[in-house]
Amino acid sequence: PVSAWITGVVAVLVVVTFPVIVLLHRLGRIGDELREELMKRTRSWAILAPAFIVPVLAGAAWTILCVMIIALLCYREYARATGLFREKSMSLLVVAGILVATFAVADHWYGFFMALGPLTIVVIAAAAILYDQPSGYIQRVGLSALAFLFFGISFGHIGYMANDPDYRPILLMLVVSVELNDIFAYLTGRTLGRRKLAPRTSPNKTVGGAAGAMILTSLLVGVLGHFVFAGTIMDDPLKLAGLGLIVSIAGQLGDLMLSSIKRDIGIKDMGVTLPGHGGFLDRFDSLILVGPAVFHYVGYFRGFGVEEPVRIITGGGS
Amino acid sequence: PVSAWITGVVAVLVVVTFPVIVLLHRLGRIGDELREELMKRTRSWAILAPAFIVPVLAGAAWTILCVMIIALLCYREYARATGLFREKSMSLLVVAGILVATFAVADHWYGFFMALGPLTIVVIAAAAILYDQPSGYIQRVGLSALAFLFFGISFGHIGYMANDPDYRPILLMLVVSVELNDIFAYLTGRTLGRRKLAPRTSPNKTVGGAAGAMILTSLLVGVLGHFVFAGTIMDDPLKLAGLGLIVSIAGQLGDLMLSSIKRDIGIKDMGVTLPGHGGFLDRFDSLILVGPAVFHYVGYFRGFGVEEPVRIITGGGS
Repeated sequence: PVSAWITGVVAVLVVVTFPVIVLLHRLGRIGDELREELMKRTRSWAILAPAFIVPVLAGAAWTILCVMIIALLCYREYARATGLFREKSMSLLVVAGILVATFAVADHWYGFFMALGPLTIVVIAAAAILYDQPSGYIQRVGLSALAFLFFGISFGHIGYMANDPDYRPILLMLVVSVELNDIFAYLTGRTLGRRKLAPRTSPNKTVGGAAGAMILTSLLVGVLGHFVFAGTIMDDPLKLAGLGLIVSIAGQLGDLMLSSIKRDIGIKDMGVTLPGHGGFLDRFDSLILVGPAVFHYVGYFRGFGVEEPVRIITGGGS
Repeated sequence: PVSAWITGVVAVLVVVTFPVIVLLHRLGRIGDELREELMKRTRSWAILAPAFIVPVLAGAAWTILCVMIIALLCYREYARATGLFREKSMSLLVVAGILVATFAVADHWYGFFMALGPLTIVVIAAAAILYDQPSGYIQRVGLSALAFLFFGISFGHIGYMANDPDYRPILLMLVVSVELNDIFAYLTGRTLGRRKLAPRTSPNKTVGGAAGAMILTSLLVGVLGHFVFAGTIMDDPLKLAGLGLIVSIAGQLGDLMLSSIKRDIGIKDMGVTLPGHGGFLDRFDSLILVGPAVFHYVGYFRGFGVEEPVRIITGGGS
């Protein structure tokens, strides 16, 4: 039921946003540039929201599959933008790592999933020797290791939540609040923002926007979480405010992380998978840090799928 | 008993090696340059071997402490050589990570230890944004993340083995075989080596040396392992040969990994902690990949400390 109404609200929001933007523009409350920006964001979410919500409602296996596809698409964009796709063996290893991480998640094999992080990076660092080209070694290993951590492990944490019987409302709340967090930062930043947050990394972000998003997202998560976690240990104003802060801070840091990588390499946008709507990765970069942060925060209090069978596919205890 | 005689053999070997080198040199079987190189290696091991063997014999807590000190010393050298020490916050995070990883190891808290890898790297990647200096971001994050993985997590796996009641002979065998693996590669490389293994990464390594070390180390581990694992599931020629191969290959790759990093940055030696004996890190770099590889290989068959209490310090189950 909570899932149903979150879905309903998202659907209504997406549909309603278009006329609202047009109306505000007609009334002269927003300029042409802002209108374009808002339309662009809303349009890409009108496409991406159902692509995520439908699998989540369909079932755990579909959710995990969907997370894997998003991870692979994000990696494709990242590899193209950073030039990593030219290093075939590195790219192959990252993709293999994402597939193996997905297997560990689907198998509900926590130990393997957790060991995969360091192990895959160590394999990447070892494989990168075989080029026998020390110049660029750190960049090659750094880019590949971060890619695997971001798209294999971090996104994997989001998929892992599907091992919990109650994953639907949690995941929907997560995605909605991360996305609104972005919009909150953008809107309050335009209204209240004066001091730049990190001018060299992301020139448009302001301290005011970051603070506004932290307050609004905490409120949002506080309200949504009260219904999502109704009757559990997480249904506590302090714990939920903490969750909201974590979502807001991790979401904004994830965004800045990708900006840092882009600017270090000297590119502006990650890709144009959705032509005219900005990069695909730009829509999901905020989730990168949110995944593990929320997983471990909520997991600390209530765990994820602790009562559910583990090692479903490979069998044999924990 | 196995620990006692491995210790004895190491002590005798170290003591006997000096006169043997001098004798071979007098007989004209080895040149001045080779004599110097062999003396240098033997001397540094005469210092380092007891520094590791004594804590291992003294007890698990001492072993874990000793691994932590080695990790911190290696990191100090690495940070100086790569210039990472100049980025105070990054260095602080890596050191904090090593301390926390040591705590997780000492606590015998596997889940926390395993989650630490990705989590710390994500914290490093997020903290690196705060410099607001995108140029160099990947290098900064890559160097710090690799440092934590190498010295916190990889070395941590070696310390983690001390949670097993039978850790003494295993750790002694590991260190002795990794060290002899280096020497095997060096000696067979000089005798049989013709084709360069990775000329741009490490000009002195040859394919012959790598192959020779693989054969000799497998034999060595096959024999030592028969005593170390006597009566357990690991006491099987095939499994032990596999272990030997893993030690040999992981040892050589670890060495090459550090060479790649050094050459990428444009330095030749990592440091001079032991003046006149080469870098401290040069003695331990081979252990970086061996730690996790052996841990997971042996752990797959017999586990490490599975019957021992977990979360000793923090209490409360797994």
